[in-house]
Amino acid sequence: MFGIHSAGVYPIAPTPFTDNGEIDFNSTDRMVEWWGEIGATGMTVLGIMGEAPKLDLSESVAFVDRCIKRAGKLPVLVGVSAPGFAAMRSLARAVMDKGAGGVMIAPPSTLRTDDQIVTYYAQAVEAIGTDIPFCIQDYPLTLQVQMTPKVIQKIIMDNPSCVMLKHEDWPGLEKISALRRFEKEGSLRHVSILTGNGGLFLDFEMERGVDGAMTGYAFPEMLIDVVRLQKAGERDAAHDLFDAHLPVVRYEQQQGVGLAVRKYILKRRGILASDAQRKPGSSLTPAAKAEVEYLLGRLARHDGRAGKLPG
Amino acid sequence: MFGIHSAGVYPIAPTPFTDNGEIDFNSTDRMVEWWGEIGATGMTVLGIMGEAPKLDLSESVAFVDRCIKRAGKLPVLVGVSAPGFAAMRSLARAVMDKGAGGVMIAPPSTLRTDDQIVTYYAQAVEAIGTDIPFCIQDYPLTLQVQMTPKVIQKIIMDNPSCVMLKHEDWPGLEKISALRRFEKEGSLRHVSILTGNGGLFLDFEMERGVDGAMTGYAFPEMLIDVVRLQKAGERDAAHDLFDAHLPVVRYEQQQGVGLAVRKYILKRRGILASDAQRKPGSSLTPAAKAEVEYLLGRLARHDGRAGKLPG
Amino acid sequence: MFGIHSAGVYPIAPTPFTDNGEIDFNSTDRMVEWWGEIGATGMTVLGIMGEAPKLDLSESVAFVDRCIKRAGKLPVLVGVSAPGFAAMRSLARAVMDKGAGGVMIAPPSTLRTDDQIVTYYAQAVEAIGTDIPFCIQDYPLTLQVQMTPKVIQKIIMDNPSCVMLKHEDWPGLEKISALRRFEKEGSLRHVSILTGNGGLFLDFEMERGVDGAMTGYAFPEMLIDVVRLQKAGERDAAHDLFDAHLPVVRYEQQQGVGLAVRKYILKRRGILASDAQRKPGSSLTPAAKAEVEYLLGRLARHDGRAGKLPG
Amino acid sequence: MFGIHSAGVYPIAPTPFTDNGEIDFNSTDRMVEWWGEIGATGMTVLGIMGEAPKLDLSESVAFVDRCIKRAGKLPVLVGVSAPGFAAMRSLARAVMDKGAGGVMIAPPSTLRTDDQIVTYYAQAVEAIGTDIPFCIQDYPLTLQVQMTPKVIQKIIMDNPSCVMLKHEDWPGLEKISALRRFEKEGSLRHVSILTGNGGLFLDFEMERGVDGAMTGYAFPEMLIDVVRLQKAGERDAAHDLFDAHLPVVRYEQQQGVGLAVRKYILKRRGILASDAQRKPGSSLTPAAKAEVEYLLGRLARHDGRAGKLPG
Repeated sequence: MFGIHSAGVYPIAPTPFTDNGEIDFNSTDRMVEWWGEIGATGMTVLGIMGEAPKLDLSESVAFVDRCIKRAGKLPVLVGVSAPGFAAMRSLARAVMDKGAGGVMIAPPSTLRTDDQIVTYYAQAVEAIGTDIPFCIQDYPLTLQVQMTPKVIQKIIMDNPSCVMLKHEDWPGLEKISALRRFEKEGSLRHVSILTGNGGLFLDFEMERGVDGAMTGYAFPEMLIDVVRLQKAGERDAAHDLFDAHLPVVRYEQQQGVGLAVRKYILKRRGILASDAQRKPGSSLTPAAKAEVEYLLGRLARHDGRAGKLPG
Repeated sequence: MFGIHSAGVYPIAPTPFTDNGEIDFNSTDRMVEWWGEIGATGMTVLGIMGEAPKLDLSESVAFVDRCIKRAGKLPVLVGVSAPGFAAMRSLARAVMDKGAGGVMIAPPSTLRTDDQIVTYYAQAVEAIGTDIPFCIQDYPLTLQVQMTPKVIQKIIMDNPSCVMLKHEDWPGLEKISALRRFEKEGSLRHVSILTGNGGLFLDFEMERGVDGAMTGYAFPEMLIDVVRLQKAGERDAAHDLFDAHLPVVRYEQQQGVGLAVRKYILKRRGILASDAQRKPGSSLTPAAKAEVEYLLGRLARHDGRAGKLPG
Repeated sequence: MFGIHSAGVYPIAPTPFTDNGEIDFNSTDRMVEWWGEIGATGMTVLGIMGEAPKLDLSESVAFVDRCIKRAGKLPVLVGVSAPGFAAMRSLARAVMDKGAGGVMIAPPSTLRTDDQIVTYYAQAVEAIGTDIPFCIQDYPLTLQVQMTPKVIQKIIMDNPSCVMLKHEDWPGLEKISALRRFEKEGSLRHVSILTGNGGLFLDFEMERGVDGAMTGYAFPEMLIDVVRLQKAGERDAAHDLFDAHLPVVRYEQQQGVGLAVRKYILKRRGILASDAQRKPGSSLTPAAKAEVEYLLGRLARHDGRAGKLPG
Repeated sequence: MFGIHSAGVYPIAPTPFTDNGEIDFNSTDRMVEWWGEIGATGMTVLGIMGEAPKLDLSESVAFVDRCIKRAGKLPVLVGVSAPGFAAMRSLARAVMDKGAGGVMIAPPSTLRTDDQIVTYYAQAVEAIGTDIPFCIQDYPLTLQVQMTPKVIQKIIMDNPSCVMLKHEDWPGLEKISALRRFEKEGSLRHVSILTGNGGLFLDFEMERGVDGAMTGYAFPEMLIDVVRLQKAGERDAAHDLFDAHLPVVRYEQQQGVGLAVRKYILKRRGILASDAQRKPGSSLTPAAKAEVEYLLGRLARHDGRAGKLPG
């Protein structure tokens, strides 16, 4: 179940669209089933890379519902960040009714002081209800909100329904260590920490004490294996696999362009029928596609799974 | 009708709530009727000070519908700014179906370059449909997006459905002159310009060529009179009236606090039954209330309308 | 002397230039002497409106030196904000050697979290030396750094050499009350608070507990009189005078344009020989000049000092 | 010579300090000589990672002078970005007198619109003089200024003394292609483009048309080899070497922490006597040092140069 002991890998779901912009439920089914097959322990939908603001409320709920139905026992975490608490509450209550495991809340970019951030989460919890487990999203690069370890500590301690931190500060290794140190010292209760940032530091983040990853890398198998290997103490093997993927991880982790790369690779891997984005979207130039293909070819020498592309 | 020749004063509507957070439709009726009586030429609802993000979609549409029904012939402009085009389109189509005169679109705070801003408006128009008249909101202080006169010119020239500019740059006097100069030179078609910023520069903005005001000052009678006096060439009388109100205008124009001041005064004037805001809201301290009362007392010496307060 | 009991009005000095961009020391002398004559209790040089970044180090020191020599017993506070502590220390030590009363330090715009702000001031004090009295500048509108009352409290309590707060948050009335409440509760030692923001809220700021003003309004006589009247308990008289000036205060308080207006008026008043700014500078359009003249004419009806313009 | 045909690798110099904060000229000599030996084609000093704001003017000039004396025929580019043009001009003229090859200018973070950016560079060139060759620094992640290809084109075409672009937009591959396409179309004269971002995309940037790299990676030999291999058409070999270094490149490219990692590795490599930073500085935790050591050990299996560490 989704909770303070969640671990492993929660892929961040892109929202599959057909070429004419409809939600592609067949691809959705295939994607969700695939995650179950390869060993994901949950999934996150309507996150930043899920093009959530391009869906209206009924579409959002329908997409979440479809994911939950196919996810079986895997918990589905739903991004409910919104400019106002009315929309946040509506979506949160609706998806919990459908069977979601919890929700993820990112702070609005206008927050600056420590008090503003802490207060925002208190108000958000009051708005959605204290019965809904939630995950803090700490992503300063995109969200422009900087949370210190002490602010995160206070949010967790003030709100019993906070069960997870999606950590994607950059740099963030010392922040992870600080939070786990608070835990050891007894000033912070345990919550699950899954890391994002495309997995760019997952190799060392595991060693600093996170429980896994929550990110959208198009080869989640690598994330799953690195988490498993690190937990098994096979450090070198974990780094070997990670390093083989790093050129692609790095290429995907380009701000704004990343989603186009990921959808392209997922299409090449046979998961998505189309790599279309809803407007306003980005797409890959021929030069970029050729670069991705070159990277995939190189990756296939190290990881056979990259070689099984149908295209 | 709402269009490129709109002039006069469009009050920005606060959304009236009861003390327990429900939309107060009786106060809404009273407020809308009052605007008609004092000579407003239209109104704008679900703007920044309308607490729009705290309403869900159905509440938003219900509130707009109620305003339209009471507004009679006065056009109702509806703020539809949203983090994504799906929600923007849903709201825009819904309120136009109800009889709205047009919509207002503010740029998201992430936009930086000239191209990004121009492209955003092109996409927004494509999303809502080219048949909906719209107003650009240029409010850098709050929105953090800086539009040059050339960017505004391009948006207007690229999009025939753009009929108005809500101007609230600060400083903005030279910007108004620049836009009107473009018009004279033939490089910009005419659109209506109504100014915001609480009316803090309305005295001179009228002289620079705007058509009126669109703002939430709690004595819209002053805005209406200043616009009328300036159009009639009674400059000194316009400034005399404006200056008498300036201490209150200035006090209302405090970022964040302003809405609490306005709702307080509107309650004191008998328009709103309650000055409550939905959470997260602000309220006036006793010290602030005493300051407002002192200002109202001073204003009453110059403008009898401030003296007719029931409280 | 400059210190925790400083009160009254510290005009913020524009740096006078000749039309060809040299520092105009004659105008400097005249300006400083004038401030002494009208009852200023100190002055602040090399502030944001002093075009400080357009002076190199030797020019800065020469200008400060000239001001100090003419200021007689009036303390001169010097803005030393800099992107690095090396330049800050160089300037601070140099001007203290010349006889400055203290320095003013603004936070760099990159600071976000409470800890970052507190740490920055600790490092700045370490850099310049604990023997130099300093003033915190809290100006979020321009500096983009938001300090809560608790952060200001911590800076003051951590650093004994902090003797003053230049308060120009907007809105800021409740912040002043919060700080003075800390003092009453015993959790904050007393420091002088002078307010900025062009004086736009000086009327009520005095009532909330500040000691005076530190700002660049071109009629500092009004600031001095309002401070005096409020201290004498003549509230209505203070507001009457303030309100008469408010149209001009408001016009000067336009971001970016303000300095051009102030230099223009100071030239009209015979204080500055030229209203030139060093490049990159702004200047008034004919339309703006006409607006200022109109405002001055109206002001003269209420305050004879505005009528004594030589121009 | 430094100019529009500059190519190869310009290492970004850290400023070496002794443990007690003095400039370490012996380490400076060793570092500069080492760059000459390994095949660097120039160097850049007083850049963002050079802790430039922590040096006062005389120290800055002394450090630049020392670098130039040791650099022999290699051109030295000097960062002169400053909050005001007076300081920029002082430093630029001083270092050109000492024999610098040119200067690098980053835009201040307050610039937003296209016109503001173009105007800023025009004013900077006027301030320093049109006789000083300069390099634009385009680094939105840190500088918060977004320059479109058209803005860069305009700066280059307006200012004949612009000879180079330090490109570190992220993502930036399409931007490079756009600029080189302008050149082919005849709307942009040729300038040298060297890329930054720690080299994180150098593999593909070379293929998109850049002339080399200007960045601070602690193994500049890799950068030099990748540039050479790509120019020789040995694409796979270039990527093989690049990929072997990517885990370290990625680790160094952590915002804020990067300089500590680089100074640590340069000390381990025997180039710097100390990895000290001037206050306020960062340093590596034991956990971070262990991670760097682990990465270096892994790198040594692929690149013998990483194995020759003395420590």
